[in-house]
Amino acid sequence: MSDFEASPRTTVKRLPARAAYDHASVYSILDEAVVCHAGFSIDGKPFVIPMTYGRRDDQLFLHGSVASRLLRSLAGGVEVCVTVTLLDGLVLARSAFHHSMNYRSVVVFGTAREIADGEEKFLALETITEHIAPGRWSASRQPNPAELKATTVLALPLKEASAKIRTGPPKDDEEDYELPVWAGVVPLRLTPSHAIADDRLHPDAPELPASLAGFTRERK
Amino acid sequence: MSDFEASPRTTVKRLPARAAYDHASVYSILDEAVVCHAGFSIDGKPFVIPMTYGRRDDQLFLHGSVASRLLRSLAGGVEVCVTVTLLDGLVLARSAFHHSMNYRSVVVFGTAREIADGEEKFLALETITEHIAPGRWSASRQPNPAELKATTVLALPLKEASAKIRTGPPKDDEEDYELPVWAGVVPLRLTPSHAIADDRLHPDAPELPASLAGFTRERK
Repeated sequence: MSDFEASPRTTVKRLPARAAYDHASVYSILDEAVVCHAGFSIDGKPFVIPMTYGRRDDQLFLHGSVASRLLRSLAGGVEVCVTVTLLDGLVLARSAFHHSMNYRSVVVFGTAREIADGEEKFLALETITEHIAPGRWSASRQPNPAELKATTVLALPLKEASAKIRTGPPKDDEEDYELPVWAGVVPLRLTPSHAIADDRLHPDAPELPASLAGFTRERK
Repeated sequence: MSDFEASPRTTVKRLPARAAYDHASVYSILDEAVVCHAGFSIDGKPFVIPMTYGRRDDQLFLHGSVASRLLRSLAGGVEVCVTVTLLDGLVLARSAFHHSMNYRSVVVFGTAREIADGEEKFLALETITEHIAPGRWSASRQPNPAELKATTVLALPLKEASAKIRTGPPKDDEEDYELPVWAGVVPLRLTPSHAIADDRLHPDAPELPASLAGFTRERK
């Protein structure tokens, strides 16, 4: 796949060897994570809010209540930075200084646009729902006109984006390899456990759907 | 424990029933999570960066290279918003509209101060290291003067902070409970797997320390 064009904001200056600018790296991280952290300024003051999202092609969709201050600000055309982080492990070095994390993160800069068109909005909500749990859009009751009206959906173009990735063992100073200190990696993963059925489940509701029984976030 | 004083920024306006302003809720979320997302503006443009951190009493510590643009900006006294999110589950409702997440998040607003005092800096780095993996500070080689000089450490006062928490089953519209749609929660948890020892581990290095063998992020 092709690369994102590097901008001054997306060019990784600290530890540039960890940077990735190709679409495949950026998209796979966006598709695996569940939540993003969206940052923006109101009156010069920063706000960072956790949100769900979805991606289709080169667009990232965000949504929320029309009553939300956040959504109103973003729909008004303010600049946003959306960051997604997958934590893959604790990196335990021989020195405290070289302790680190294995992670995959993506940073997207841009200005979101509110989706006004009804059909486009419907598709964007499908994308977000399917991002959270594949198969749910067709399994559940889809939005009615009142629900659509109560929801603001934003599209952020994936134009100015980059990834930063750390993998592998700790990297200690050469002389520290002589120290009898345990060193290595503790892998971490966001793991689902058995689904808990709602107390008021309808007797005719299907069994736990295969899309959830085999649920995994991994898209590698 | 006592409460944080609610400010206009920390007062949860959307779904206020999910808000928590007590120190115990805020601190337990900060102590369980591994990374935060720090947001700030440079020239009016928002940046959101994943970072590790540590908490001691009513201070949050952030650190990074003295060469980092982020750390230089924050040390210069710009306002920061630090958000921490623990994702506890996917909430699958009967309607697409009521799909949600179970989560615990904290938002902290403030201005960070650079720690100049050597002893305070050393203690802050100990706090960050122990936050990542308890027991590592005394187990590993502690920072030397050159490493301390290469590291900027910031303290953010935990004064303007609030938590937002969602737990429990989906909440569908009353009429949708008649639908034969599977509904419930898929619990999610950041789970460690077996630690991977470094290839160059010193033969006299101890076995996997108990602090890691019993590793868990949960602080409940």
